Amino acid sequence: MSHNSFGHLFRFTTWGESHGPAIGCVVDGCPSNIELSESDIQHHLNRRKPGQSRFTTQRKEPDEVKILSGVFQDDRLEKQVTTGTPISLMIENVDQRSKDYSNIRDQYRPGHADIAYDHKYGVRDYRGGGRSSARETAMRVAAGAIARKIIPNVKIKAGVVQLGPHKIDRARLNWDEVDNNPFFCPDPVAAKEWESYLDGIRKQGLSIGAIIEVVAENVPPGLGAPVYGKLDSDLSAAMMTINAVKGVEIGAGFQSAEFTGLDNADEMTWDGDKLDFSNNHAGGVLGGISTGQPLVTRFAIKPTSSMLSPVKSINRYGESVEVVTKGRHDPCVGIRAVPVGEAMMAIVLADHYLRHQAIVGHVDEHWSPKIK
Amino acid sequence: MSHNSFGHLFRFTTWGESHGPAIGCVVDGCPSNIELSESDIQHHLNRRKPGQSRFTTQRKEPDEVKILSGVFQDDRLEKQVTTGTPISLMIENVDQRSKDYSNIRDQYRPGHADIAYDHKYGVRDYRGGGRSSARETAMRVAAGAIARKIIPNVKIKAGVVQLGPHKIDRARLNWDEVDNNPFFCPDPVAAKEWESYLDGIRKQGLSIGAIIEVVAENVPPGLGAPVYGKLDSDLSAAMMTINAVKGVEIGAGFQSAEFTGLDNADEMTWDGDKLDFSNNHAGGVLGGISTGQPLVTRFAIKPTSSMLSPVKSINRYGESVEVVTKGRHDPCVGIRAVPVGEAMMAIVLADHYLRHQAIVGHVDEHWSPKIK
Amino acid sequence: MSHNSFGHLFRFTTWGESHGPAIGCVVDGCPSNIELSESDIQHHLNRRKPGQSRFTTQRKEPDEVKILSGVFQDDRLEKQVTTGTPISLMIENVDQRSKDYSNIRDQYRPGHADIAYDHKYGVRDYRGGGRSSARETAMRVAAGAIARKIIPNVKIKAGVVQLGPHKIDRARLNWDEVDNNPFFCPDPVAAKEWESYLDGIRKQGLSIGAIIEVVAENVPPGLGAPVYGKLDSDLSAAMMTINAVKGVEIGAGFQSAEFTGLDNADEMTWDGDKLDFSNNHAGGVLGGISTGQPLVTRFAIKPTSSMLSPVKSINRYGESVEVVTKGRHDPCVGIRAVPVGEAMMAIVLADHYLRHQAIVGHVDEHWSPKIK
Amino acid sequence: MSHNSFGHLFRFTTWGESHGPAIGCVVDGCPSNIELSESDIQHHLNRRKPGQSRFTTQRKEPDEVKILSGVFQDDRLEKQVTTGTPISLMIENVDQRSKDYSNIRDQYRPGHADIAYDHKYGVRDYRGGGRSSARETAMRVAAGAIARKIIPNVKIKAGVVQLGPHKIDRARLNWDEVDNNPFFCPDPVAAKEWESYLDGIRKQGLSIGAIIEVVAENVPPGLGAPVYGKLDSDLSAAMMTINAVKGVEIGAGFQSAEFTGLDNADEMTWDGDKLDFSNNHAGGVLGGISTGQPLVTRFAIKPTSSMLSPVKSINRYGESVEVVTKGRHDPCVGIRAVPVGEAMMAIVLADHYLRHQAIVGHVDEHWSPKIK
Repeated sequence: MSHNSFGHLFRFTTWGESHGPAIGCVVDGCPSNIELSESDIQHHLNRRKPGQSRFTTQRKEPDEVKILSGVFQDDRLEKQVTTGTPISLMIENVDQRSKDYSNIRDQYRPGHADIAYDHKYGVRDYRGGGRSSARETAMRVAAGAIARKIIPNVKIKAGVVQLGPHKIDRARLNWDEVDNNPFFCPDPVAAKEWESYLDGIRKQGLSIGAIIEVVAENVPPGLGAPVYGKLDSDLSAAMMTINAVKGVEIGAGFQSAEFTGLDNADEMTWDGDKLDFSNNHAGGVLGGISTGQPLVTRFAIKPTSSMLSPVKSINRYGESVEVVTKGRHDPCVGIRAVPVGEAMMAIVLADHYLRHQAIVGHVDEHWSPKIK
Repeated sequence: MSHNSFGHLFRFTTWGESHGPAIGCVVDGCPSNIELSESDIQHHLNRRKPGQSRFTTQRKEPDEVKILSGVFQDDRLEKQVTTGTPISLMIENVDQRSKDYSNIRDQYRPGHADIAYDHKYGVRDYRGGGRSSARETAMRVAAGAIARKIIPNVKIKAGVVQLGPHKIDRARLNWDEVDNNPFFCPDPVAAKEWESYLDGIRKQGLSIGAIIEVVAENVPPGLGAPVYGKLDSDLSAAMMTINAVKGVEIGAGFQSAEFTGLDNADEMTWDGDKLDFSNNHAGGVLGGISTGQPLVTRFAIKPTSSMLSPVKSINRYGESVEVVTKGRHDPCVGIRAVPVGEAMMAIVLADHYLRHQAIVGHVDEHWSPKIK
Repeated sequence: MSHNSFGHLFRFTTWGESHGPAIGCVVDGCPSNIELSESDIQHHLNRRKPGQSRFTTQRKEPDEVKILSGVFQDDRLEKQVTTGTPISLMIENVDQRSKDYSNIRDQYRPGHADIAYDHKYGVRDYRGGGRSSARETAMRVAAGAIARKIIPNVKIKAGVVQLGPHKIDRARLNWDEVDNNPFFCPDPVAAKEWESYLDGIRKQGLSIGAIIEVVAENVPPGLGAPVYGKLDSDLSAAMMTINAVKGVEIGAGFQSAEFTGLDNADEMTWDGDKLDFSNNHAGGVLGGISTGQPLVTRFAIKPTSSMLSPVKSINRYGESVEVVTKGRHDPCVGIRAVPVGEAMMAIVLADHYLRHQAIVGHVDEHWSPKIK
Repeated sequence: MSHNSFGHLFRFTTWGESHGPAIGCVVDGCPSNIELSESDIQHHLNRRKPGQSRFTTQRKEPDEVKILSGVFQDDRLEKQVTTGTPISLMIENVDQRSKDYSNIRDQYRPGHADIAYDHKYGVRDYRGGGRSSARETAMRVAAGAIARKIIPNVKIKAGVVQLGPHKIDRARLNWDEVDNNPFFCPDPVAAKEWESYLDGIRKQGLSIGAIIEVVAENVPPGLGAPVYGKLDSDLSAAMMTINAVKGVEIGAGFQSAEFTGLDNADEMTWDGDKLDFSNNHAGGVLGGISTGQPLVTRFAIKPTSSMLSPVKSINRYGESVEVVTKGRHDPCVGIRAVPVGEAMMAIVLADHYLRHQAIVGHVDEHWSPKIK
């Protein structure tokens, strides 16, 4: 069962509410003897943390992670390593502004989980969205940092490839640019243009959606399972668990609906050394199993539902209300979803890496032909 | 773990290869005392079965399902009911043409799982695609027929809403039309136009992709779970396990990336009797939990990789080959994916229905306001 | 979830009722390229099958197993192998005597699951015990035959070590004797004595309990997990799922309650080549992880509840009844539980073998000291 | 998968090492709107906590639990309740004496998990036993306190019924006596006698085993599942995960091997108001499903492996060593296992309560006859 856990062999469970004392997760199934310290995790958390630019929420959270278990430094060793036991991570919440929540307490904000939680549970921690807050995603980034250690050869790249209606120019795509602008945008020209566009959105008290692309290179072929443990199915489930995601594609995605079989064919060649494909419409996966091509996914994030602009709704008593959110919110939650998408990619791959290893006892990094 | 199983409380496991003696599934977790006979299942299988029109594969499979366990007719009762024990279903394969498979045995067909299976397992049943054949989806339809019995009030509608580049006209959408044309198309005018279009594709030895929409009405609010057991995450995982699916959307899906928060807001009103929403961009789910609005998903199916048109590839020895598929194949696998999509929707909802019932002990069919 | 499935990475799901058309199972997670034919499985089924001596039920079931999926003989190979896809096994029921079940239909037989099933499900297939019949254990033996292929070096031995109050003499224990008598008894002298004892029980219309011991040799050290995936916990769960089992021990078991720490200590020595223990009170497992010592478990089976001797009970209407079972039953179900216990041991070990392989990528067959 | 988690619908995951900064657990699947505060949990922790008498370890741990998530006090309510989200619990370790661990670092103590962990993981946190320490069981007690809230009508009683070779006198069994002596012994006379016996053991630098009995009354009939989700199988798995447990019995347990079917029969009567059984050899479960009779289990605990008395062993380099444990240890770990056994009983029942509710939508507290 998976209410608050994800993964099978590499499995993590998150806990915590936005305005509770802390958030945390337990990572179970990490192999032993992997070097791991808080700074390995902090590095990734810092990329997601709020308040980095005027385009993200101004909540100030240092997001300092503590490792509470599962690592050990034997006095014979020069480094701290994982022991194979569960790794407990915790981040204390610091900037939960205490205030009067009586408004949000009764209102059902459109696009938010308020009414759904209230219906399901009959009670909800309404402070800052409680459990449904995107604050939970910090723990995905933390767990993802550990997952990366299991698949050290895999390179994961991600960025915003569309902000509202504005797409990047694929001719300018350069993943190295992602950390050079406040949008994790791999196209520096688009990133420049987006600044004034998003400023406009923000000043109007609005918010906007985005599309994020995540690419994993050097994925060993053979990861995945044929029917219900498909790598692409698990990947889409993973991305769809991220707050505000409304669509997921693999490879050519929705465009493949318009393709003929001939357009879509990724023809294969073998040059005596390397398996090559004419294209990557498959996005790195065939029949649910990785092929060694880059694993490519994109997901759509809806605009932040919290805005200064008023919207009509009801409260828990069925009365009409006007909802205006004055708190600190991201004008585009899609931006901070980039490190989260990377983390979920790493988590899915680490899990399938271990699952593959269970079956075959080892993982071949490359395909090679049979001897005749 | 989920190699060949799907679901948690309502869980089914499929088995069988395209050209083996039979295919089957075991459905576990179905409550007892539900009336169930083979004809309940056969009805749905007949809609998916091959050879129904010139637009689907000409393989002749009667797809007659047998129930081997899990039902009983007490001699005090007038009907056969489920007993709460596993329901085993089997369909014997009839029209597996015996032939020389030596060609397909060595070739890696682009877009097919051949190379991925060979890499992962080192051996594969290449006859008709073996386990990776869409023949497996018959068992999803069978399991889905049982799932529907758990959620009898839910109405599931599905159809092809785009064939290649040709979309339906939403103004003409009428789900009742779906069974009146060979495309499961809810727009009768488009269905007419698609006939000649798909004939053309077929005559050119090509294939084409499609987009399928599945809508569930009367979904009780409260189904789902907040973070990793999200209803939409499970739904996207379910759809992504269907052969050839490359993308999944919920509600406004990818379009929501272009929306502002104001465009996207589904405003709520309560008229004293019924909760109403101004729109359904959310697709019936907020924070991973159903709201009572129709649950809406769309998925993209790539064109059939098997075509008469030749494509370049390699064989298992790394040698270049030209692949031409002369067998009986669907020019658009998307068409027969419609009953499969319906079935997966039913399966996800039945599972979450039971999961919800576990937590709250009952399922309210509608939201109602609190008394002040 | 595990209503009708067992195991994680090596996982099997059984289905079928005692008097339904067939029983079967689906084995998922078996690695590929393992030679497997029906005769590999039949060999073990024949040891469990009814009607082998006057001490087991006289129901005549040939128990012929069919493999319906998951194996393939590539025409380049001389043998049939597993493909990594689910293996579906089926045995048709042959000797379900049609008769008037109206008696058993309403009665709640003491010691049987009748009342519990009726309470839980409100309906039950009462013919021959339906799903609660020990007939289900045939599929465990079948699944176990496949599990053995994953751990080919492990030797599993099992036998009845106590029949009613009569224990074997440990000084005469010889596992090779197990197949030389109708009791799977490893002590030939005891076996001889048990014949007249059990004849007496049978002729009085009674039944009797037994204790079975199962030993696995050559278990690689390191299998298991520290806290809730303990090898001994999984083993006891496995044994306790066998019909009529009321107790499970590992190693010294209940006797260890009477030991001092000194009595109980299995002291270790290393002779430069092999790790040795002064004793095996631990039964081959420490902290939930195998040590390389023989894995030893014993389980107690209660006497068959079906007897000719009348017992008092009630029917579904709360009326008093006298229950007499005239059908074909085992005077000691413990006997036929021996191959079932072996199978469950193999299944638990195969699952943990794969789980261990997932984490470490390989399985060392022996412990060896670190270099200083 | 279940390395460090237990349960399905009510599921908890523990983390932490004996001498790390803290131990904790995450409880997932607890229904909402259940009153819960730290004192509800602390009450049970205090019964297990070390240093309560001279018969338990002298380590001083206040074991103060903190709830970090999953509860909320809406300002409209007078009490704090669960919200349906994961409940994170943490206990800081206080009395981890810093000392030179170089001895224990290299030694493999007989009866301890040292060599098994080292073999499996290649590294281990040897301080105080690390993850294999019984300190982990504090979190079971904490999770169990929450589980009890899901089954408020069930009464769980437990105690030591055998200390070394000394059994209680069943004629004097009185569960109310359990908290009146340092042994959780339900026989006050035996408790008195055990004092001097255990003092003797302790003074000799030895340790001793024990048998614990756990009884749950008012268990609703119908909990459990027929084949692999059997209530008794899950119960035995649960008990067998407790440190040092070597055997588990249900009802008559191993004694049932000596019974005839007639001896063993629990005859049923219905007095128009209540279902009665002539005995409870079944221990409250038939066919894996509860009958409404008290659920009875017993488990055997081996003697503490850590003693002052020296034992022979080897170190990680294969060298012979003599092991003497001078630390603070329980002369009989069985004593403090009593609250742990109660907790595991509560956890198994809460999980099955939710599982049953999932299938039938409600839980009947009593069996009643059908109307004719």
